[in-house]
Amino acid sequence: MHTDASNMQALRTLITAVRPPRRAARHSVQQHLDSLTKPKGSLGYLETLAMRLATIYGDPPPEWRDRVVFVLAGDHGVAARGVSAYPSEVTAQMCRNYAAGGAAVCAIARTVGATVTAVDIGVNAELRPATNLHIRKIRPGTRDLSVEAALTIDEVRAAILVGAALVLERPTLPDVVAMGEMGIGNTTAASGVTAALLRVDPSSVVGRGTGVSAARMTRKAALVRDALARIPDRAGPLRVLAEVGGLEIAGLVGVILGAARAERAVVTDGFIATAAALAAVRLCPRARAYLFASHLSTEPGHRLLLEALRLRPLMELDMRLGEGTGAALALPILDSAAAILRHMATFERAGVSTHRAG
Amino acid sequence: MHTDASNMQALRTLITAVRPPRRAARHSVQQHLDSLTKPKGSLGYLETLAMRLATIYGDPPPEWRDRVVFVLAGDHGVAARGVSAYPSEVTAQMCRNYAAGGAAVCAIARTVGATVTAVDIGVNAELRPATNLHIRKIRPGTRDLSVEAALTIDEVRAAILVGAALVLERPTLPDVVAMGEMGIGNTTAASGVTAALLRVDPSSVVGRGTGVSAARMTRKAALVRDALARIPDRAGPLRVLAEVGGLEIAGLVGVILGAARAERAVVTDGFIATAAALAAVRLCPRARAYLFASHLSTEPGHRLLLEALRLRPLMELDMRLGEGTGAALALPILDSAAAILRHMATFERAGVSTHRAG
Repeated sequence: MHTDASNMQALRTLITAVRPPRRAARHSVQQHLDSLTKPKGSLGYLETLAMRLATIYGDPPPEWRDRVVFVLAGDHGVAARGVSAYPSEVTAQMCRNYAAGGAAVCAIARTVGATVTAVDIGVNAELRPATNLHIRKIRPGTRDLSVEAALTIDEVRAAILVGAALVLERPTLPDVVAMGEMGIGNTTAASGVTAALLRVDPSSVVGRGTGVSAARMTRKAALVRDALARIPDRAGPLRVLAEVGGLEIAGLVGVILGAARAERAVVTDGFIATAAALAAVRLCPRARAYLFASHLSTEPGHRLLLEALRLRPLMELDMRLGEGTGAALALPILDSAAAILRHMATFERAGVSTHRAG
Repeated sequence: MHTDASNMQALRTLITAVRPPRRAARHSVQQHLDSLTKPKGSLGYLETLAMRLATIYGDPPPEWRDRVVFVLAGDHGVAARGVSAYPSEVTAQMCRNYAAGGAAVCAIARTVGATVTAVDIGVNAELRPATNLHIRKIRPGTRDLSVEAALTIDEVRAAILVGAALVLERPTLPDVVAMGEMGIGNTTAASGVTAALLRVDPSSVVGRGTGVSAARMTRKAALVRDALARIPDRAGPLRVLAEVGGLEIAGLVGVILGAARAERAVVTDGFIATAAALAAVRLCPRARAYLFASHLSTEPGHRLLLEALRLRPLMELDMRLGEGTGAALALPILDSAAAILRHMATFERAGVSTHRAG
């Protein structure tokens, strides 16, 4: 573990090192898109994705071979308050399930040609490391955010640095990063982070999570409202993450900063991962250029977060599982957008007549 | 070419041969879904897709290896009326582009592990056959629907049978069928088919197509309205396809019936392909169980068609290109839905605690 001062310096260095993407100039990518054998703009948002990917990776973007889904897991002290429909033990049990390849994200990742790397960044159990289960525990779960700060600011910084290191200290840099989380109780934490960063009442962001009753939802919102009372109006994202966040949420902030530093696209997932995305962009606005939304979930706070981030979801399938399922599902869509620039013929080359007067 | 009577008989036989999917019982698939390591229903619409695929293919659905995108191409007499922003020659030019692998659908199909088979079912030019460009021409384009019936009823039947044969007489049956179309002028034809089948005014379905001006849109709607005046209120789908349809549209009706006959999922594309889907379901209501929507395009008639078909699009990306781009893009999502049943562990097997009282 670093000391407070060195973590502070390391995080500052990381944030400063994130550069705007500029491997291709927007006007030249636009010219390329408009020269391809399709009516101008007819691929809609796929063309916007192609543009963004080309500025990050160059035009055409190279094929992605090494696609990774980082699933960060951590426990939450607040789970003891009955905010989830599942007991805390499920966090550790699901980590073993990721390691064994039996979870939903494993099935989807396999289908889209990605690998899953699960990371215990704060699970309240002793887990055995495995090829695809890394142990990077900051502490065994957060403190109960309903009575005290869930983390210290330095624990938050340490978790962010762990997340960034997952990307930056990997034997080889991944070509694209998808992300997800697991942590019983973490929709409560994400609701707190979202409400604090967006300055809205918790009732507008708290949802059913894994499927709790209306009574539990009211309790969740009340717990979050009480916790938010501890946070001063001008608190920055680190303080917010410390008071009401989670280790996996802070870790995902780091995954995003690491991906942005490495100039890789990073695909966010559901409500909780997107709360981490907003915290990351508040810490480092330049990171936004590397972020891609995947889906819009049924959690009410998710839409607010995506709007604040100005990110457009690619699917709306009523998913609310997290663990990177939506992010993995979005990879072929992003890849297809890049493939347009990689493989399509131009009007000239294909001998296709261009537009006549409309 | 068959005679009228034999085509009529062959089409009747095809329609009668379509069976409801029943390789797995819904209640047993639901039990399977609810036993998997995720909160019940948390994968949202992906679970509905998994259910539908399991009833078609069995539970778990086997992996799809042979995925094909059929792109049917035909010309339209009405194109001479200036309803498109492109000249008719583009239909043939794009067929050559499909054969050469330079079109958008080729780039996307390659990314999602599908092959493209383009089919000249009515292009007004001599095209040379190639490995992935089949010549099955019924006639070199339709008659001008603004002055007379675009096709005879027997030409419609012949085109449907050609489409069905693409699936059923393929050396091996494809595992899944995606479909698309190309034909300058065919949003006008599809608008006519949609307005006639749904009994709505053409102004509510006519859109910008490949990108025409407001003046052209008004002309398109007026042309379609005039043509619809020829169709009696009780006209069936064959008569509608004959008066205002197209060879590629009728061919796609056949692709759908062929896929349904072969008990394969068939993925529809944009406005034009979905107009064919509605015609197919009107001819053979049992075919609906095999149909999957891919995306919602910007053409106003598309939403009306999907609502009438009770099909939910998986993406809404402002695409309006056709040629199977949306259908190809949907394949990994459908495949991921099936993969959940194929690869996910059960709570029991993974040793994960189930739900506690909500």
